[in-house]
Amino acid sequence: MTAEKTPVRIAVDAMGGDNAPGETVKGAVEFAKSGEAQILLVGELEQVEAELAKHDTDGAPIAVIPSDGVIKEGDAPALALRQNPRASILVSTGLVKKGQADASVTMGSTGGAMAAAAVILGLAKGIERPALGGPIIGMAPRTVIVDLGTNVDCRPQQLVSFAVIGDVFAKHFWNVESPRVALLSVGAESGKGNRQVRETSELLEKSGLNFVGNVEAHDLLTDSVEVAVCDGFVGNIVMKLTEGIGRATADLLRARLDGKMAGEDVNSVADEIFELSNQVETRGGGPLFGVNGVSVVGHGAAQAEAVKRAIGMAKMAVDTGFVAQMYQDLESVHARLEE
Amino acid sequence: MTAEKTPVRIAVDAMGGDNAPGETVKGAVEFAKSGEAQILLVGELEQVEAELAKHDTDGAPIAVIPSDGVIKEGDAPALALRQNPRASILVSTGLVKKGQADASVTMGSTGGAMAAAAVILGLAKGIERPALGGPIIGMAPRTVIVDLGTNVDCRPQQLVSFAVIGDVFAKHFWNVESPRVALLSVGAESGKGNRQVRETSELLEKSGLNFVGNVEAHDLLTDSVEVAVCDGFVGNIVMKLTEGIGRATADLLRARLDGKMAGEDVNSVADEIFELSNQVETRGGGPLFGVNGVSVVGHGAAQAEAVKRAIGMAKMAVDTGFVAQMYQDLESVHARLEE
Repeated sequence: MTAEKTPVRIAVDAMGGDNAPGETVKGAVEFAKSGEAQILLVGELEQVEAELAKHDTDGAPIAVIPSDGVIKEGDAPALALRQNPRASILVSTGLVKKGQADASVTMGSTGGAMAAAAVILGLAKGIERPALGGPIIGMAPRTVIVDLGTNVDCRPQQLVSFAVIGDVFAKHFWNVESPRVALLSVGAESGKGNRQVRETSELLEKSGLNFVGNVEAHDLLTDSVEVAVCDGFVGNIVMKLTEGIGRATADLLRARLDGKMAGEDVNSVADEIFELSNQVETRGGGPLFGVNGVSVVGHGAAQAEAVKRAIGMAKMAVDTGFVAQMYQDLESVHARLEE
Repeated sequence: MTAEKTPVRIAVDAMGGDNAPGETVKGAVEFAKSGEAQILLVGELEQVEAELAKHDTDGAPIAVIPSDGVIKEGDAPALALRQNPRASILVSTGLVKKGQADASVTMGSTGGAMAAAAVILGLAKGIERPALGGPIIGMAPRTVIVDLGTNVDCRPQQLVSFAVIGDVFAKHFWNVESPRVALLSVGAESGKGNRQVRETSELLEKSGLNFVGNVEAHDLLTDSVEVAVCDGFVGNIVMKLTEGIGRATADLLRARLDGKMAGEDVNSVADEIFELSNQVETRGGGPLFGVNGVSVVGHGAAQAEAVKRAIGMAKMAVDTGFVAQMYQDLESVHARLEE
C-alpha cells in the first residue's frame, strides 16, 4: 500500500535454483536496472559479490544480505529448515516478516519455500499448506486452477480455500467482478463426483462465492469458468498431463510437417503448441497462496530472463495487494462458514 | 473355449444408444454377414423387424429376441432395472447368464449396462462396480489406464483390482509376459502421493504383480509402463482432459496451417491429432472389467461402423478368453492378499 511512495523492496534468494547464483544474480541486476524495485540479494557474500562484479551495477538499487547454506530440491523441508537456520530462503522470507522487504523471490526448492513461508509468515484460516494455482493451460488463459500439487489429501474446507484463492486471483488479474467458480469433477450434473466433491459443493453453496457447480476436464479448455477447484493430487496430474501432451504433440508435428512447410513455420506452430501446454516452464512460477506475505517461487531451471519475470510477478503482487486481499478473504469466508 | 467348434453367439442390444435401432440393427446385420458370429438382436419386435426389412439379411445368422423398454443414459440404473425387468439390456445380459449367448453388446447407458452386469452376471472378489479401462492416449498405445470413471471413491483393495485387470489386459492384448504395473501419482519417488496411493503401494508390493512404483501424468505419454492404475475420478479426468486438449489442438492447427499447406495435408494432421486424443470416440468402447461374463459397452453416438467394431471387440473377448482370465486372477490375487 506504500508502493506509490517508497520503492518496492524485493528479497531475491540468490542461492536457490539449478543456475544459482550466476543466473539469479544476473536476472536480479537486470531487474534492478529498470528502477522498478530495490533488490536485496540474499546469499553467500563472497559468491554473490563475485557474480555482481561481472555486471555493471553502477547506480542500480542492489544490496547484498548474507546467508549461510541453501535448501535443495529433494531435502525434507521441515528438517532442512531446522538444520539450516541461516539458509538463504529463510533469511529472504525473514526480511519480509521483519518488514525489511515487501516480497521474497526464489528459484529454489518449492517445498523449502513453502515451509519457510508457513513457519515465518504464517497461513490464513483454513489453509494447512500454501497452495499453488494459475492459468496453466494456454488455450484457456482465463481459467485459474487451484491447487496444482502442494495439497494432496484435502478436506472439503481446504477446497473452499482454493475457491477463495482463485476468486481473488481472477478479480485482481482479470478484473472480473464475480468470477465463476466450479469444482472439477467427472460429470457436470450436481451430485456427480466423489465424496470430496459432493461435500465441498454443499459448503460452496454457502460460501458467498459465485459457485456455478461442476465442470469436467474438457471444460478446462474452453474458458467456461474463471476458477476451477481441485485437490493438489488431481491438479498436479492435470498440469503434468497437459505438459506431456503438449510436448508429445509438438514433437509429432515437427515430424509430420517436416518438408511440407517452411522450416520456420513448422517451428513456430510446434513451439506455440508446446508453450500453450507448458505455461509454468515458459512463463515461470507464481506466488504461494494463503500465505501472509508475498513469496514467489519460480522454475528451478530458470535463466536470468525467467528470474526477471519472477521478480516482476512479485512486484505486481505487491503493487496490486492481491496476496493481502486473498489472506483477508480466506479469513472471512472461513469465519462465515463456521457461523 | 468352445469358440473353435460352435459359432460365437453375441447378443446385441438393438434399442440402446442415440441412433438405435436404425444404426444398431444396420451394424449388427453387417457383422452377421461376415459370418464371424451369430447375432441375437434384442429389442422391440416390431421396430427391430422393420429395421431388418431395410437390409438384405438373406442367409445371415440373425435371430430376434423380444424385449420391452429401454434404459436411457441419465436414468438411475438400479431403479430403472427394477422398473423395467424386460428392458433390452437386461434381456441381452440375461442371455449370457443363461448360456444362450457368449457376450452382450450395447451402445446404451453405461450405468445401465454396469448395473445389469453386476446384478445378473456377478462381480469378482474385490470388485464393487465393473471397471472400464483401455489405452486411451493414442501416443502411448501400449499403456492401459484403469479405472476410467466408473469407480470414483476407491479403497486401496479396489486399486489392486484395477492393477490385476490391466495386467491381464496387457498380457492378452500385447503378449507381454510380465506387464509393468504402476500407480498414477504426483511424484515418481515411492512415498509420493496421496494417502490412497501410499496405502495401495503396500498392497501392490505383496500382490505378485510386476509393480514398478509410481508414474506421473506425463509418463502416460511415453509407453513407460503397460498398466497405469488410478481411481475412476482421476482416470475420467485424465481421459476427458486428453480429449479436450486433442480437440482444441486440432482446431488450432486447422487455423494456423490454413493456406500454408495443401488442404488435405492440413486435415490429415489435424485429424490425426484429434484421433490420438479421442480414442474412445474414434475406436469405440470396451468390455466391462471384473464381470463374470463378456459385456461390451460402445459409444452412445455410435453409427453402424462403430457398432460393428463393438461387436468385433466382444467376439475377440470371447475368443481370447481374457475376461474369464481376468475374473479368475481377481479372485486369486484377493485371496492371496487376505492370507
